[in-house]
Amino acid sequence: MMPPWSDVIKLALSQDVGRGDITTNALVPAGREAEAELIAKEDMVVCGLPVMAEVFRTMDSRIRMLPEAPDGAGVMTGNTICVVRGPARGILTGERVALNFVQNLSAVATLTRRFVEKVQGTGARIVDTRKTTPGLRMLQKYAVRTGGGHNHRMGLDDGVLIKDNHIAVAGSITEAVRQVRETLSHLHQIEVECETLDEVREAIAAGANVILLDNMDIGTMQKAVDWAKGKVLLEASGNVTLANVLEVAQTGVDLISVGALTHSAGSKDLSLRIKI
Amino acid sequence: MMPPWSDVIKLALSQDVGRGDITTNALVPAGREAEAELIAKEDMVVCGLPVMAEVFRTMDSRIRMLPEAPDGAGVMTGNTICVVRGPARGILTGERVALNFVQNLSAVATLTRRFVEKVQGTGARIVDTRKTTPGLRMLQKYAVRTGGGHNHRMGLDDGVLIKDNHIAVAGSITEAVRQVRETLSHLHQIEVECETLDEVREAIAAGANVILLDNMDIGTMQKAVDWAKGKVLLEASGNVTLANVLEVAQTGVDLISVGALTHSAGSKDLSLRIKI
Amino acid sequence: MMPPWSDVIKLALSQDVGRGDITTNALVPAGREAEAELIAKEDMVVCGLPVMAEVFRTMDSRIRMLPEAPDGAGVMTGNTICVVRGPARGILTGERVALNFVQNLSAVATLTRRFVEKVQGTGARIVDTRKTTPGLRMLQKYAVRTGGGHNHRMGLDDGVLIKDNHIAVAGSITEAVRQVRETLSHLHQIEVECETLDEVREAIAAGANVILLDNMDIGTMQKAVDWAKGKVLLEASGNVTLANVLEVAQTGVDLISVGALTHSAGSKDLSLRIKI
Amino acid sequence: MMPPWSDVIKLALSQDVGRGDITTNALVPAGREAEAELIAKEDMVVCGLPVMAEVFRTMDSRIRMLPEAPDGAGVMTGNTICVVRGPARGILTGERVALNFVQNLSAVATLTRRFVEKVQGTGARIVDTRKTTPGLRMLQKYAVRTGGGHNHRMGLDDGVLIKDNHIAVAGSITEAVRQVRETLSHLHQIEVECETLDEVREAIAAGANVILLDNMDIGTMQKAVDWAKGKVLLEASGNVTLANVLEVAQTGVDLISVGALTHSAGSKDLSLRIKI
Amino acid sequence: MMPPWSDVIKLALSQDVGRGDITTNALVPAGREAEAELIAKEDMVVCGLPVMAEVFRTMDSRIRMLPEAPDGAGVMTGNTICVVRGPARGILTGERVALNFVQNLSAVATLTRRFVEKVQGTGARIVDTRKTTPGLRMLQKYAVRTGGGHNHRMGLDDGVLIKDNHIAVAGSITEAVRQVRETLSHLHQIEVECETLDEVREAIAAGANVILLDNMDIGTMQKAVDWAKGKVLLEASGNVTLANVLEVAQTGVDLISVGALTHSAGSKDLSLRIKI
Amino acid sequence: MMPPWSDVIKLALSQDVGRGDITTNALVPAGREAEAELIAKEDMVVCGLPVMAEVFRTMDSRIRMLPEAPDGAGVMTGNTICVVRGPARGILTGERVALNFVQNLSAVATLTRRFVEKVQGTGARIVDTRKTTPGLRMLQKYAVRTGGGHNHRMGLDDGVLIKDNHIAVAGSITEAVRQVRETLSHLHQIEVECETLDEVREAIAAGANVILLDNMDIGTMQKAVDWAKGKVLLEASGNVTLANVLEVAQTGVDLISVGALTHSAGSKDLSLRIKI
Repeated sequence: MMPPWSDVIKLALSQDVGRGDITTNALVPAGREAEAELIAKEDMVVCGLPVMAEVFRTMDSRIRMLPEAPDGAGVMTGNTICVVRGPARGILTGERVALNFVQNLSAVATLTRRFVEKVQGTGARIVDTRKTTPGLRMLQKYAVRTGGGHNHRMGLDDGVLIKDNHIAVAGSITEAVRQVRETLSHLHQIEVECETLDEVREAIAAGANVILLDNMDIGTMQKAVDWAKGKVLLEASGNVTLANVLEVAQTGVDLISVGALTHSAGSKDLSLRIKI
Repeated sequence: MMPPWSDVIKLALSQDVGRGDITTNALVPAGREAEAELIAKEDMVVCGLPVMAEVFRTMDSRIRMLPEAPDGAGVMTGNTICVVRGPARGILTGERVALNFVQNLSAVATLTRRFVEKVQGTGARIVDTRKTTPGLRMLQKYAVRTGGGHNHRMGLDDGVLIKDNHIAVAGSITEAVRQVRETLSHLHQIEVECETLDEVREAIAAGANVILLDNMDIGTMQKAVDWAKGKVLLEASGNVTLANVLEVAQTGVDLISVGALTHSAGSKDLSLRIKI
Repeated sequence: MMPPWSDVIKLALSQDVGRGDITTNALVPAGREAEAELIAKEDMVVCGLPVMAEVFRTMDSRIRMLPEAPDGAGVMTGNTICVVRGPARGILTGERVALNFVQNLSAVATLTRRFVEKVQGTGARIVDTRKTTPGLRMLQKYAVRTGGGHNHRMGLDDGVLIKDNHIAVAGSITEAVRQVRETLSHLHQIEVECETLDEVREAIAAGANVILLDNMDIGTMQKAVDWAKGKVLLEASGNVTLANVLEVAQTGVDLISVGALTHSAGSKDLSLRIKI
Repeated sequence: MMPPWSDVIKLALSQDVGRGDITTNALVPAGREAEAELIAKEDMVVCGLPVMAEVFRTMDSRIRMLPEAPDGAGVMTGNTICVVRGPARGILTGERVALNFVQNLSAVATLTRRFVEKVQGTGARIVDTRKTTPGLRMLQKYAVRTGGGHNHRMGLDDGVLIKDNHIAVAGSITEAVRQVRETLSHLHQIEVECETLDEVREAIAAGANVILLDNMDIGTMQKAVDWAKGKVLLEASGNVTLANVLEVAQTGVDLISVGALTHSAGSKDLSLRIKI
Repeated sequence: MMPPWSDVIKLALSQDVGRGDITTNALVPAGREAEAELIAKEDMVVCGLPVMAEVFRTMDSRIRMLPEAPDGAGVMTGNTICVVRGPARGILTGERVALNFVQNLSAVATLTRRFVEKVQGTGARIVDTRKTTPGLRMLQKYAVRTGGGHNHRMGLDDGVLIKDNHIAVAGSITEAVRQVRETLSHLHQIEVECETLDEVREAIAAGANVILLDNMDIGTMQKAVDWAKGKVLLEASGNVTLANVLEVAQTGVDLISVGALTHSAGSKDLSLRIKI
Repeated sequence: MMPPWSDVIKLALSQDVGRGDITTNALVPAGREAEAELIAKEDMVVCGLPVMAEVFRTMDSRIRMLPEAPDGAGVMTGNTICVVRGPARGILTGERVALNFVQNLSAVATLTRRFVEKVQGTGARIVDTRKTTPGLRMLQKYAVRTGGGHNHRMGLDDGVLIKDNHIAVAGSITEAVRQVRETLSHLHQIEVECETLDEVREAIAAGANVILLDNMDIGTMQKAVDWAKGKVLLEASGNVTLANVLEVAQTGVDLISVGALTHSAGSKDLSLRIKI
């Protein structure tokens, strides 16, 4: 089966290539071969090589990619990450889209690794959010795993998270949990977003399996953990940075979600050195 | 006709909503109405409201959006940007995807505006590149225009840019320009990437219309401008930052391309305050 | 957003209508109006009216449907279920596909209700399986809910069920549960398929949340329930019929899955009486 | 060209696999190979092996299928129908969808064969209807042929069947046949649905090529056959069962259409025994 | 349901409009309204107005079209065919694609009408072939009907035509007809392509319903008609022109097929006069 | 990447083959091989062989095509253009669609070559227009290049052409050019449609790069050329025929656009001689 990211690869290529690469088609003969090396221009955790391979395969099924550093490897400035060989037209035309993917995904994996390393030894999992770049959900979630993080739910359909607006409609946390449990498949846990310790207590009493501690200060968070640890899973969420993530982890929470992993990772510097 | 970004909106929604929002569907009755305000959590140039409107319209055609600050407006922390009204399910389920779009596009527009303001009065245009987020090409190019920048080519099919590899295959800049001119539509200009003053001279002699000054230091760039200004358009490219863009502009180049506008703009902080 | 079943509606219509209804187009003027009543030809739980409405809306957006008995209602032979009004061409051309949906979904809902009624008072949930008709996954799962049943996982991506082959690869139940837990999102439960009491014990010790009791005889199932009830959820599976489902439920299992709900429900007899 | 059923295969796989098989992906290494045997758990006419092959090929192009009993073969409980070899992930993930197809199609072929055997020697053809499962039109029509039946029209665009509502609009059978003949391609026959002998006579006089004897009792049907046999083709339709089909055939009708072949065939019991 | 030509309309618009009409978007404000008249620049049978309407509706759902001469009407140079009103951008951007459709379809309808008029009174039908412009099958077949012609089969799936290569494989006309009859739905006629009178006789004896007289000279054709008229339908095919079609018709053939109706009709001259 | 014409190939095949070729499938065994020769039935410039190859490859990936005369070659009546080998079913079923493409594209290439030959030595380029057959834009533009012509813009998004309506909205040519230049990418030229010498002068003064001389008589055109030659590119447009194209070219214009190249080229006579 096509990997779940073939849609966004086709979309990106159609946006960039459109009716055809008029420069390359005018100058590079159809039979010409080329070889290219993907070079790190800064230190990073590599991510996205299978995507790059599929970009080039989509351009021309004869292009071959030989990875030297697999996804998840840490590379340093100047390292060769992989070698690409095949028809020059396909390589030149696909280059930019391939790089656009790898640069973003490597940035996500690298940033995730930094968060993960910060909390090493605390037992807390770094998890992502649904604040992903539109179209890149599956890929950025993969990059988070590549960097050593864990995935929160993939979408609105494979996990329950009861938020303030849901509670407002249901009338109370207790009622919201009850209603969801009534129809929910037995394979799902129920997570409830709480802003106060009272809400945490009500959610646990109502049978929630996971509590999201929403934007709590460290003191309140510590009290929530002291009281609830072991009864349910506890997720810290809101304004977590590299500067404060260790402090958050040391409260004893089980999970720390970080939106910046995906929405603000930016782009790692990589270049494709082509010999033609 | 569907706007050229309806594909990525559908893709993003299908990735997030999948088989349906199991939390909202369990808790919010189909007939329930809601109202929401989009609030700026930091200062920014707003961009993406029509996209947000289409996300919500795709969720439920009865959802209406009333903009208070249009795309391109500068807003400050706490400002209300628009109001959304309609069926609560559609608003709750579409919220995250709508925000994911607006947060990225506003970041691109805001960063672009900062670059544009830096070079104000110099006559240089700030232009984007093809280093856009996969799937968001049309939208990020729109955000660049919203921020006051200009677009470089949209893709490989609507503009010619002859790069080093093309020149290597053709044998020389002169030959490359000649071959492209031979087949090219009369409505296109020809741009050539040059690294040295000799290359600039050869490109102009060959009939190039635009010269991309690739990673030149300011001194070399100044010489290129002094010699070529007015004969062709000159584009500065490579390692342009907010710190050095004015110096680049003051050389007299016509265009300054900045990849970071799209690949590293990150995300602006916005929230949707829902009353249900 | 289009309901998650618009794909199969479009597919079914394109398969039936193809290049156009050559009989109706030759005989029925474009402006002709018609009215039709959907009549039950046997007793049943109605299911599929929103699908029927969308079939007709897809044929002609001017066709209106006025339900008299909503999805989930029990109707008797001769009852009118809904009234359809609008352009005659669209009604005549869409009739067969609309009925094909409603006949199958009402059969699924009706059969589910019979199972649910059999176990009433025992506390056991009747749940479906992934043995659905290809293309009708979402619709038949909806029909199961309409009949009073509950859904098991919707697909392979929103619930974990560790089966014998998975255990064989992992080496043991213990190891399989451990490996899955390692990477699994914290919002998922883990279910393990067990054939013996020893396996049940190992799965629970390993931290499984749900045990599927696979094809166990009533005696063994009873022992499993006596031992494990309350520690985990217990699902009975395999060869459950209307004749034996009560006996199964009386063991105290929490869930009883029945493949026949979807793969062998057949078709309920309904007709569309058209006045033209 | 893709077979006309690749659409429904892709739809069924996307509904079941969604974002990926989270159990198998967590437990089965990418390189692991497996072998599986498709075993009949009851007697049946096999149908759907090419579909099963395409399901697995769609999962992973390296999976190979070696049929032992081809489509149309009668197999008995315990017989091996085919062997599947290849990457274990693809086999485990595709198993359920593959079985869902083969179980339904084998049920259709088996039921068709029973009807065909009942009327053997009478000269009557068993034909299907448009009462097929939504999305499975082409496949179930193929299964009917596999079971020895014949296909009625494939859809509304490749055959003319004038029904009561069409006649009502045209004013009379005579007028309806005339109007259709006026525009119809010369390659189509015209079939008219008749409920009485008078209608049969009018249809034949009007130039119909085929008469559908709609829900006639055996006596009336016999009179229609005695009068019309040889002048036109005669199709018996309505409430035909295995119990009465021979009696219907013995009236001398040319065709007997049976909706149950496709809408109520249910599912044959088959299992995929996997060695990993 | 979308008309069966919405695919080619979307394809044509995407090929022409691509990322957007850069001239119109730069110069025409979004709110500007326009009115346009479709004017005949030569005499013709008009065809394609519903297609034109859908092109403009696809561009902008607010554009309205008011036909003055319906499809099938004969118009003269200078006549106004319809009026278009709505947002100027949509009208300007959709103009060329709309005209491209109407110009071709009106040419097909006009040429068909000339053939039809030539044979008026002879009883022969003018029919089209499968020699249609790729992508325009349904539309050009519609234009043939608009011009007064009849359609041969729409494709390879809704009519049987046994050609020389089929006969070569089957061994003889007799065997070919027998084999097709064996599996063919009872709603189809069988047509056989014959080059000699012997073949005509064999085909009729074998039970063919229609004979295609392939490239026969008038004398041979006349003999075929004299012998076979009334037993089967007779179709003349091959090198039929406006100059010889009457002579062909006077042989008494039932059908005359003309490939040129669709593959060589060219384009009628029409212009859209826009007031802005 | 799929060539930009795979969409129209799939559309054409689905329109012709639909649910399957019922004649060929009934008569030609799946394993049967065939060989076919594409023969020119009149003199022509061949165009479309890669399209033909893809049509057959889409039918059956085992079909191989061996070209004898490549696209662009001039062939004479009776010449063999290519040989096709592979499964007979795919060849017979794909034959008509393959021919429909090649017949139109060869007609476009042949007509283009005749125009190009007429103006040889004058320095004028023959260019196409947007008056292409809906769906065939990319292919007919390719055929024009194959015949020795050049392409005008491919669509509304890759070239600017300011027409009378645009000028009416902007207020003047000067203002229109100014506004477009303001936002236009620096890689595009600006072309303005002019009907009088005054307009030509205004357009050049405003900074237009190309002037379209719209329907000018030869005398006026000559004056425009005498005045503007060398300052801008000059395109003659309107009512250009094989009879007058040389006279137009001799005025000294740079480009001559001919709508008839694509909208009225018709069809070249070719046949596929199949040995089975």
